[in-house]
Amino acid sequence: MTDRSAADRRLTEQVRVVGSGLLGASIGLGLSAKGAEVIVDDASPSTRSLAIAYGAGRAPAADDTPGLIVVAVPPDVVADVVAAELERFPEALVTDVASVKLAPLEQLRARGADLSRYLGSHPMAGRERGGAVSARADLFVGRPWILAGHEGISYRRAAAIEHMALDLGAVPVEMDAAVHDRSVALVSHAPQLVASLLASRLRDGSGTALGLAGQGLRDTTRIAGSNPELWVQILGANAAEVAAVLRPLRDELDSLIAALDDPEAPASRRAIAEALVAGNEGVARIPGKHGQDKRFASLVVKIDDKPGELARLLTEIGEEGVNMEDLRLEHSPDTRVGFAEISVLPEALQPLAAALEQRGWTLMEAER
Amino acid sequence: MTDRSAADRRLTEQVRVVGSGLLGASIGLGLSAKGAEVIVDDASPSTRSLAIAYGAGRAPAADDTPGLIVVAVPPDVVADVVAAELERFPEALVTDVASVKLAPLEQLRARGADLSRYLGSHPMAGRERGGAVSARADLFVGRPWILAGHEGISYRRAAAIEHMALDLGAVPVEMDAAVHDRSVALVSHAPQLVASLLASRLRDGSGTALGLAGQGLRDTTRIAGSNPELWVQILGANAAEVAAVLRPLRDELDSLIAALDDPEAPASRRAIAEALVAGNEGVARIPGKHGQDKRFASLVVKIDDKPGELARLLTEIGEEGVNMEDLRLEHSPDTRVGFAEISVLPEALQPLAAALEQRGWTLMEAER
Repeated sequence: MTDRSAADRRLTEQVRVVGSGLLGASIGLGLSAKGAEVIVDDASPSTRSLAIAYGAGRAPAADDTPGLIVVAVPPDVVADVVAAELERFPEALVTDVASVKLAPLEQLRARGADLSRYLGSHPMAGRERGGAVSARADLFVGRPWILAGHEGISYRRAAAIEHMALDLGAVPVEMDAAVHDRSVALVSHAPQLVASLLASRLRDGSGTALGLAGQGLRDTTRIAGSNPELWVQILGANAAEVAAVLRPLRDELDSLIAALDDPEAPASRRAIAEALVAGNEGVARIPGKHGQDKRFASLVVKIDDKPGELARLLTEIGEEGVNMEDLRLEHSPDTRVGFAEISVLPEALQPLAAALEQRGWTLMEAER
Repeated sequence: MTDRSAADRRLTEQVRVVGSGLLGASIGLGLSAKGAEVIVDDASPSTRSLAIAYGAGRAPAADDTPGLIVVAVPPDVVADVVAAELERFPEALVTDVASVKLAPLEQLRARGADLSRYLGSHPMAGRERGGAVSARADLFVGRPWILAGHEGISYRRAAAIEHMALDLGAVPVEMDAAVHDRSVALVSHAPQLVASLLASRLRDGSGTALGLAGQGLRDTTRIAGSNPELWVQILGANAAEVAAVLRPLRDELDSLIAALDDPEAPASRRAIAEALVAGNEGVARIPGKHGQDKRFASLVVKIDDKPGELARLLTEIGEEGVNMEDLRLEHSPDTRVGFAEISVLPEALQPLAAALEQRGWTLMEAER
């Protein structure tokens, strides 16, 4: 055990980060803060200089001997850069941080790269653009960091990658590359395209129609604001898995449109109802604190849209000794009130509701 | 002018509410609180008794002479009930509160109802289920209340409906019935079905996949948790307009699936990129305080997941004299940190960021 941790320590002492955009620069900042010697490289000398100026690490030198190399370049060129790094540093362990994991692995295998020293990863940091100017040492704190295993390397051999994720405050999650891609197609990539398609319809909408937009529309289309340049690469690299999610969705959409074209038919009513029930069932499977989570109960408090009201509410909830598990705000433009949906443990609901009404707050029923 | 307001006052003195679910009972509670004499009726005697017990009004009597009748029954039976009320009370002005406006109007016209005394309406109260037990006098405060005009009656003749909306704290919005239905199909009904279809895909997902669910998936599928019984009626009654939104969406989805099936082709890349850009353009058209609104700038503050931290943050923002325009929380299950995205006027951003860092908060870049 002593030998192994000594080996790990050696591996992470010199880390080479290739690609100094938001992710690469943030990794550099975070590892530098942990005392690692970080080397920053980038195809663009000016981008590299910027990341170095921000403190992400030092410029490469001829005698660099990195134990670990992190490739943080756009999805399109991941395999090329990983292959080049594996060849140039024949002792180093190499990972990448792209959102798709199977395509680069297969490209590397096809060209005969040394896969015993490569294990892809995917930090789900959620803000994959912005460049080194947006980099933060704590970008990965509390986020899942997927380690995409394959049969050419053991997780134990790749322990330095897991240690890096831990050093950056992330939560390592081991997952086969194919499983990763299928999973993110379902929970991230297909939803991105569906949100884009739905938002796209709004281009033709009247101002009157858009003026009626409520929280439901805002929520369903929010991620349609994402960066097209990045997403076209992600979707292209995971195309088969994304299509596998969208194809049955398209078939069900076809059936629904047919039902809407003949809405009085009993079969149509049933088809529409079944689609809605299926949606209920699907959304209930999402874990987490939001809305559907049966672990928590919620109440809705009316808050005047003026400075300090929400802070006062949350302070008073704290004074009641209640731990708020989640908070969701809702308010329409041009109105003077908002609503705060407060999630708490079920046993805290009734005492909190009584205490808030006592303190003069107006409670509404939770919407769902 | 004196005559008109006297007439209006007479009209609203006795209000008959037919249907005593959440909306009907809330209208009864709100108008009773304003001093109106409210009569509550319902096809179900027990439902009616419950609403009366909650204070929504009194039971009908043989000599009732309501000036205004509000029909708050399920969409399927709106036209039947409105027609019956118009016949039974030949002096009364009648409105309904269903989410679809053209179908009941056309059904009433087809059966020769007196449309000079009917004007449909739609309070966008957002919580259209729950029964009288969930009713609140302030359910409509700050919400748009659409008055769905048609050529058989002037808005002036229907002033008592607008006054009722104002009495309940709502914001009256005049809109042709057909425009209303087309608008809500775009901003509410089609998004509901798309969210249901997307959430439906999650039924087949692995636990591993669902475990990677992030805020994007939660947002895009939240409304898929809605009540199927209510929505099947709404969608059935507005089927043609909803289909008109979904048909081009289906065509674009077909194109996208074809592009994903041949992802290396330049035309495929372009098709995917164009869909993403179209989504950017669509979402930018949504007015309001959230995300895409260019009137506000935002910053993201890291908050420890412990009691009182968010309240402390909001209190300190208030102490800095800054009015928070919006707040969005993000946190993953099983992690100990969360992120609060604070929207403020652009000129307040830099001073607030500096003050919060001074006070020891960790700021991140806003995600978009």
